[in-house]
Amino acid sequence: MHGIEFLTDLAVIMVVAGCTTLIFHKLRQPVVLGYILAGLLIGPHTPPFALITDEESIRGFADLGVVLLMFSLGLEFSLARLREVGAAALIATGVEVMLMLWAGYELGRWFGWRTMDALFLGAMMAISSTMLVLRAIHEAGQKQERFARLVFGILVIEDIFAIVLIAVLSGIAITGSVEPGMALATVGKLSLFIVVALILGLLLLPRLVDHVAAEGSSEMLLVTSLAICFGAALLAAKAGFSVALGGFVAGAIVAEAASVKRVEHLVEPVRDMFGALFFVAIGMLIQPGLLFQYIVPVVLVAAVVVIGKTLAVTFGGVIAGNDGRTALRAGLGLAQIGEFSFVIAGVGLASGVISDFLYPIAVAASVLTAFVTPILLRSSDRIADRLHSLLPRKVRSLMIAYAHWIAGLGPVEENAAIAHMLRRLVLHIVINMALVVAVFLGAAWLKPRMLEWLPQWTAGETLRRSLLWSLALFVSMPMLIAAYRKADALGMVLAELGIRDGAAGARTFALRRVLGKMIPLAVLVILAVLVMALGSAILPSREVLLLLLLVAAALAAFLWRSFIQVHARLQAALRDVMQSSRSDG
Amino acid sequence: MHGIEFLTDLAVIMVVAGCTTLIFHKLRQPVVLGYILAGLLIGPHTPPFALITDEESIRGFADLGVVLLMFSLGLEFSLARLREVGAAALIATGVEVMLMLWAGYELGRWFGWRTMDALFLGAMMAISSTMLVLRAIHEAGQKQERFARLVFGILVIEDIFAIVLIAVLSGIAITGSVEPGMALATVGKLSLFIVVALILGLLLLPRLVDHVAAEGSSEMLLVTSLAICFGAALLAAKAGFSVALGGFVAGAIVAEAASVKRVEHLVEPVRDMFGALFFVAIGMLIQPGLLFQYIVPVVLVAAVVVIGKTLAVTFGGVIAGNDGRTALRAGLGLAQIGEFSFVIAGVGLASGVISDFLYPIAVAASVLTAFVTPILLRSSDRIADRLHSLLPRKVRSLMIAYAHWIAGLGPVEENAAIAHMLRRLVLHIVINMALVVAVFLGAAWLKPRMLEWLPQWTAGETLRRSLLWSLALFVSMPMLIAAYRKADALGMVLAELGIRDGAAGARTFALRRVLGKMIPLAVLVILAVLVMALGSAILPSREVLLLLLLVAAALAAFLWRSFIQVHARLQAALRDVMQSSRSDG
Repeated sequence: MHGIEFLTDLAVIMVVAGCTTLIFHKLRQPVVLGYILAGLLIGPHTPPFALITDEESIRGFADLGVVLLMFSLGLEFSLARLREVGAAALIATGVEVMLMLWAGYELGRWFGWRTMDALFLGAMMAISSTMLVLRAIHEAGQKQERFARLVFGILVIEDIFAIVLIAVLSGIAITGSVEPGMALATVGKLSLFIVVALILGLLLLPRLVDHVAAEGSSEMLLVTSLAICFGAALLAAKAGFSVALGGFVAGAIVAEAASVKRVEHLVEPVRDMFGALFFVAIGMLIQPGLLFQYIVPVVLVAAVVVIGKTLAVTFGGVIAGNDGRTALRAGLGLAQIGEFSFVIAGVGLASGVISDFLYPIAVAASVLTAFVTPILLRSSDRIADRLHSLLPRKVRSLMIAYAHWIAGLGPVEENAAIAHMLRRLVLHIVINMALVVAVFLGAAWLKPRMLEWLPQWTAGETLRRSLLWSLALFVSMPMLIAAYRKADALGMVLAELGIRDGAAGARTFALRRVLGKMIPLAVLVILAVLVMALGSAILPSREVLLLLLLVAAALAAFLWRSFIQVHARLQAALRDVMQSSRSDG
Repeated sequence: MHGIEFLTDLAVIMVVAGCTTLIFHKLRQPVVLGYILAGLLIGPHTPPFALITDEESIRGFADLGVVLLMFSLGLEFSLARLREVGAAALIATGVEVMLMLWAGYELGRWFGWRTMDALFLGAMMAISSTMLVLRAIHEAGQKQERFARLVFGILVIEDIFAIVLIAVLSGIAITGSVEPGMALATVGKLSLFIVVALILGLLLLPRLVDHVAAEGSSEMLLVTSLAICFGAALLAAKAGFSVALGGFVAGAIVAEAASVKRVEHLVEPVRDMFGALFFVAIGMLIQPGLLFQYIVPVVLVAAVVVIGKTLAVTFGGVIAGNDGRTALRAGLGLAQIGEFSFVIAGVGLASGVISDFLYPIAVAASVLTAFVTPILLRSSDRIADRLHSLLPRKVRSLMIAYAHWIAGLGPVEENAAIAHMLRRLVLHIVINMALVVAVFLGAAWLKPRMLEWLPQWTAGETLRRSLLWSLALFVSMPMLIAAYRKADALGMVLAELGIRDGAAGARTFALRRVLGKMIPLAVLVILAVLVMALGSAILPSREVLLLLLLVAAALAAFLWRSFIQVHARLQAALRDVMQSSRSDG
């Protein structure tokens, strides 16, 4: 019986995982290592025999673990929290991740590995283990200390970097080569997916979740949340991204619901169960033979991770304006790799672009560094003191002066308000353009399917093309108009700023008007090119197009106010969702 | 990729299940029906196409749902609650289940079905749906009414009957025939399994669970609980019983832990997720074509369930000493079938002893009756009034007189204490005998494996047999001595009761001594025969046996006190576990 085999595997995994985690807890080591050890013990590569009969099923099962881990990460994330973390963490993390990517890549090349292996090694070494660090800081009782806030900020940003890395690497894994243009296109596609998913999701899902939470049972709330989570993961996979990304975006969307705490609470046990399976499945992949063979790279990778991460985070932290002590302690806390490295290695392995030995090396290095983390954290105070006293006086005073300078860099009041307004306007234009792109891509996707679904209605090629194109234009009209209006406002503000009273004498007003219209005009041209380029797959013949454009122009003029209203209503709904969650959460 | 297919299936199931449950919740119908409808919609038997690619995996997944449903049923169960429900519910349920088994069997025969189909139909019709009834009573706000207590009591006992039924039917399904001796042997094996699992489990697991709850994280507690649940299900499956039984026993054991509420809370979401999958998988099995073909049996089965259950529960309830009104309202509340019927049908289908059409009939009948339940419950007050006024006066007064008689039947004080003592002594003897049986069965199981594991030590056949037999005898010595001592006490009490002072004149004392020794002697003989019969598979040659018996006798005499102490300590530990949970829970 298939069912009994599956149950046997699961029972073996749970029993062994239960025992090893109890032992690791007693030894005050991270429970995650217990899971990995459990996987190693019951896996097919350790004598006396494999305790798991259907590895394939367990692997499929464990994939759900990644999705659920990312979902609950998204739940805790929320857009408001991202803003709180601020620019400092973004700069520190950017510097740190780039340095580690480079260090890992160079290390891989120095080993004589292939480009792809070296690239994946760099990615694996770039991201710290959120789970490990959070647990270790909690256990050391350092939650309230200053460096802990920097650590939390870096962890949040690192997770986003990891998402981008996974998406880009998935793209590279499919084509099998590294091309800057390709990577850029992937990032573009990724941004588009995230923006569209976030906006559509935020408009619909938080309301739905809150409705279910208010009306239904816990069971229904759980099923709804899981439906959103798995559905988004599936969409992401269909769009060519990782299921992890889908889970994360779904979590970030549900995080804006007022009842997010209940959802988190309900999803936690499910996540823990599949998370355990995920880590056990990782352990099952370890081949002790390979490990002994590659003992030198393993130790070197672990050493580079510990030393490199400490230095990179310290450097990034200081550049972002933290004092050296805080930055160093944060670096010591982040000196390890973890779950994301496994996900990244899994992406590479699944698509066959990396060598077999990379996975066990990543796991072994993460195990080694994980053992070091609690020790480093506990003695970070002492280490920081020792190193600080070793620094020459000049460097110390230079660092203090730099931190002061950075702290004074923040925009002053009036400028801050204007900068905020400009940022908002540009953001609105970009988001509306992204939505237009999404609408036309959707229409292009629909084109071959329309013929299939509605054969009698859409027999004529011209008719079908005209219909689809008109529909896409009609749906994107509110976004187009909104983008134009925001561009108009942007032009006015910029003209006001650029041409101060009196500088151009009597012609000030006229000059302002001309310059102020330049920007909306440019945006209009860009929008037109965008619509034409995007619609090229569904454009009707030239005569029909001309006719349709005239109709569209007439419609736009006639329904201008209605379109504005529709857009305003949608925007208000979106703002409602995000503000209500912030006040409730 | 295998993983993506699996995720796709799961995403489809969760999204469709989420939608249908929302609709059913709006319509104020049980959510379980929503799951089944979801399964029907995405299943392979409904047009336009099957949305599930890997039905096999989902089925294996859904099996976990049964295990987890039974586990959480066991968690809520607890041995203390069983005692509370009392003998009245036991009698009422016994009468009701027997009546329904008979009615279902006769109905199946009347349809012209095979014996096995008719038997399974009877079993399916005998057990009400705990989930449905609890939810319906909750929704109708009748939790505090008197008939609700009777309903809860019957539901608890019905669940135990269902466990026994499933175990017996599994046994029948394996041999493919109904033999009274075989059924009896199955029940015996079942009781042995339950007693041994309960005692060994109660000695070890509640302490372990409480230890983890106090020391570890929620994640560890969850993994430990799931390990116990799946481990027990696996053991039950290996011993030839259903995984459902294993899950239930595991739940009943963990229910005695002080931290059972936390475990319940943690397991709930996992159970809900897999429970949803279970019901969706059931819906996927429905073939609408078969359903239309068998529309007559479906309606008849549903009608017999509604009318038969109402009458049977009313009859059983009245016999157990309830007033007619309460019994009738309880009957109306229990007039449906549900999840257990699916499990029973699943057992039959998996082993291929029942026909294909039985499953959809059971599901369709349960759907029909499930729609009726909330209506019947809400109007049970009115229906009871109407029917009551229809009864002839004589019958009514007869019923009241009967209820009074039953209420007066309970044992009076002194007798109650003695009866309680006698029951305890007999129970202890039976349990100790069961443990001895288990030890010798374990030794017999070990015999061929010893040769495999320790070939150099156990080369000699005689040596191996002697070693095993001595070990088994040594381990069971505390139980044997305890059984003998309890029998001694039982004999004394019975002699005291049987031969009242003065009845036998001067010889009273002597007679008492003789009669009092009869019972322990009889138990001793039974124990000796038992040990010999059980040990027949591992008995050494006659000369060695004699020698060993002499050594055993000497040991027993020498270590009598130690053995008693060991037993007392184990018993105290067991009592501790059960009492601490009762005071904390």
